[in-house]
Amino acid sequence: MAQESLDRNRQEELRELLSSTAGARPRALLRFLDEVHPADLAEWLLGLGELEQQRVIHALDDEARGELFKYAEDHHAAAYSAELSGRELAATLEKMPTDEGVDLLAELEPSQRDAALREIDDERERDLRDLGRHDPDTAGGRMSPDFATVAQGVRVGDAIKAFKKTDEEVVEDPNGVFIIDDHGCPIGFLSGHDLLTHSIHEVVDDVLEAELVTVGVNDDQEDVAHLMRKYGLESVPVVDPGGVLVGVFSAEDMAEVLEDEVEEDVLKLVGTSPVEQTHLPVSTRVRQRMPLMALTVAAGLVTAWILEASMGSGEGGDASLLRYLPIIIGIAGNVGIQSSTILVRAIATGEVSRGRELSVVGGEVSTGAWIGLLCGAATALFSAWMEGTGGVPAWSFGWSVGCAISAAVLWSSFLGCLVPMLCRKLGLDPAIAAGPFLVAINDVSGAAIFMGVAHLLLASA
Amino acid sequence: MAQESLDRNRQEELRELLSSTAGARPRALLRFLDEVHPADLAEWLLGLGELEQQRVIHALDDEARGELFKYAEDHHAAAYSAELSGRELAATLEKMPTDEGVDLLAELEPSQRDAALREIDDERERDLRDLGRHDPDTAGGRMSPDFATVAQGVRVGDAIKAFKKTDEEVVEDPNGVFIIDDHGCPIGFLSGHDLLTHSIHEVVDDVLEAELVTVGVNDDQEDVAHLMRKYGLESVPVVDPGGVLVGVFSAEDMAEVLEDEVEEDVLKLVGTSPVEQTHLPVSTRVRQRMPLMALTVAAGLVTAWILEASMGSGEGGDASLLRYLPIIIGIAGNVGIQSSTILVRAIATGEVSRGRELSVVGGEVSTGAWIGLLCGAATALFSAWMEGTGGVPAWSFGWSVGCAISAAVLWSSFLGCLVPMLCRKLGLDPAIAAGPFLVAINDVSGAAIFMGVAHLLLASA
Repeated sequence: MAQESLDRNRQEELRELLSSTAGARPRALLRFLDEVHPADLAEWLLGLGELEQQRVIHALDDEARGELFKYAEDHHAAAYSAELSGRELAATLEKMPTDEGVDLLAELEPSQRDAALREIDDERERDLRDLGRHDPDTAGGRMSPDFATVAQGVRVGDAIKAFKKTDEEVVEDPNGVFIIDDHGCPIGFLSGHDLLTHSIHEVVDDVLEAELVTVGVNDDQEDVAHLMRKYGLESVPVVDPGGVLVGVFSAEDMAEVLEDEVEEDVLKLVGTSPVEQTHLPVSTRVRQRMPLMALTVAAGLVTAWILEASMGSGEGGDASLLRYLPIIIGIAGNVGIQSSTILVRAIATGEVSRGRELSVVGGEVSTGAWIGLLCGAATALFSAWMEGTGGVPAWSFGWSVGCAISAAVLWSSFLGCLVPMLCRKLGLDPAIAAGPFLVAINDVSGAAIFMGVAHLLLASA
Repeated sequence: MAQESLDRNRQEELRELLSSTAGARPRALLRFLDEVHPADLAEWLLGLGELEQQRVIHALDDEARGELFKYAEDHHAAAYSAELSGRELAATLEKMPTDEGVDLLAELEPSQRDAALREIDDERERDLRDLGRHDPDTAGGRMSPDFATVAQGVRVGDAIKAFKKTDEEVVEDPNGVFIIDDHGCPIGFLSGHDLLTHSIHEVVDDVLEAELVTVGVNDDQEDVAHLMRKYGLESVPVVDPGGVLVGVFSAEDMAEVLEDEVEEDVLKLVGTSPVEQTHLPVSTRVRQRMPLMALTVAAGLVTAWILEASMGSGEGGDASLLRYLPIIIGIAGNVGIQSSTILVRAIATGEVSRGRELSVVGGEVSTGAWIGLLCGAATALFSAWMEGTGGVPAWSFGWSVGCAISAAVLWSSFLGCLVPMLCRKLGLDPAIAAGPFLVAINDVSGAAIFMGVAHLLLASA
């Protein structure tokens, strides 16, 4: 927590430096930026306006910008690059590892990408283009093409020389040397520790220990990550279909893949990505989540129709209302679990800093309100038509059902925010809030609100 | 796929070696085990009977057993150890990294743990006990207490000597040396590459580059994993409240924590752990999932009660049935999403090998059948009582509702298995099957089956 408030102070300081007399103190800004870890800067930039972001990007030199882009999400880095010239972009790309550069290029506008590639030196350009050809979901799309190798048959001393020459700017945390045969196929790996614990006169082939596990360039990246986990590997060489070593899949790549998997799993179950939602405009959030909601409403309406067909209509009032209950159980459940999952994750990753709480809850509840309105309107139209008799739509019934749905959805999104926040205030793990208990409360209270509001409106109609 | 069938052949071979004349060919077994990667052996053991498992455990020497236990889940390793003597256990523990040993000890029966600790040498015992004191969810509970250090002020040559001495049996993949001050507080880290690229005569303090990021021994392990991800760290030193270096949190620790997080996230949303479910007996699966189901049924019954209270009873027939619809939407949704999530994950991790498909689907559907029976019975009793008049329970109504719920739940669990399996057969990504689309089909078809069965039974009553 001390760390958190320290970070907030420094973030404030950056904001002041940027706003004070509009960049009239570039030297103070430069001094400040020089001391910030690029990972922190990448995080703080998210909270700044576009003008301020551009001021930071232009204040950084090529190397610092390359560092920043390594830590920022690719699509953010691409947005920050919008005003950079081809020459500036090329210089920044030269300072980034090849695989990170490829990811950034993929996110740029085609015209900007071409401008950058024109300015870059030929060898580097070829590397970038070669690597960019792989499917991003494969080992080839994630690997780094930079690594140290020596030929089989050489001595440990030669391998040490090759290891020493590894450029730390290109290969992050170099940890050893691959031994390759005449065809370029990897036959072993010697770590820095291996190299130091053997005599420099020994032949590398003789000191290789375990059999080398390799993966194919077209292998699915999730399979590679699971393989690394299973065998406890720190990195794994990637070979082309001919068996030639073309890249390295690192522990960091593995961590990224596993994280994407979390996101995908949650996305799949919840119908929206839990990442960075609290920074998105409400309209984007509504747009992202509406497909699932539309599906739920459609399923609920089909259910209502089946129920009406099997029961016959005209029972009127409450029995008709009950046919729309599956819709509210479905949507309210979705909205509640989305809000709570997003909040729990945002709290866990530090996205919800203290002080931002109200705006975060406000954003989620507004999103819920919009979703409620849209789903309520759809249900109102459909139910008025279905419950109508002799071609005359039952408008007052539709209106009541629609309003009841909107009210219940709004309540669910509020509940989905309230429970994790309360847990946090009380010092409990907010994660328990996103569980089945919330769903159960949601179902019961949603159904009660739905019936209550609909009753009230029907009675007054 | 070629790899998969190769693995199955070798797994078959192991099975034959174990069954043929009940261990009369120990030499062939030993030769076989010697060539198997312990990670593979750990996986294959899961598919064997207890007797066969014990035969393998006893055939292994201490070192191979230690290797196997490193790759097996802790509770499995503890189960395999059940028949080992204190002396054998102690010898196995000596061959395992301290942090893995602590995890295994924590899973053993107290009597066995004491027997093992009595046989172990005093220093090792103290290390194990010290490390075992940390909360398992903290950095201290996950870190390894083994690492290489040198004092500040020494030369790079001395650091290289310390690095060379690091025992690979204790420190897995040693990658560098920590520089500590007079109080034991870490002030920097030099990787194998750093050590090799500087003159051996330089003072280590002068070649340190970046500021060292440390974490506290009591920090939450998830926070540590997120910190490592944020700053792109390969490992991070763990310090006690006095700032003294006490352990290292590795990339592998980070990957484990991130994986546990996936599991927790899914567990939270789905109400059961998706890991290894297909290997569990049906009774265990039912027991694990019933709490969520009981909660859902309870919430549904409260909803039904609220609806009855707000509408008045005695509308009879269909309107009464509709009040129980939220229960079926809730349980059928849970059951379907559980089955599909478990199958999708089991397919992704290779848990469902080809040939096991029918038994996997059979197990899941049986689990669904049991859950349906239990939830149906509870609802039958409650609804018969609630819908009864003048103290006479409405048995035929309760019976109809109960049977309808059982039928719909059984259908949902079948659907939850069928869709991922179909996707796999058709070559589609099974992951799409666990999504909202399945939930929507589930809701509609579940409601239809519920109403259909209940109608039929009520009409014939």
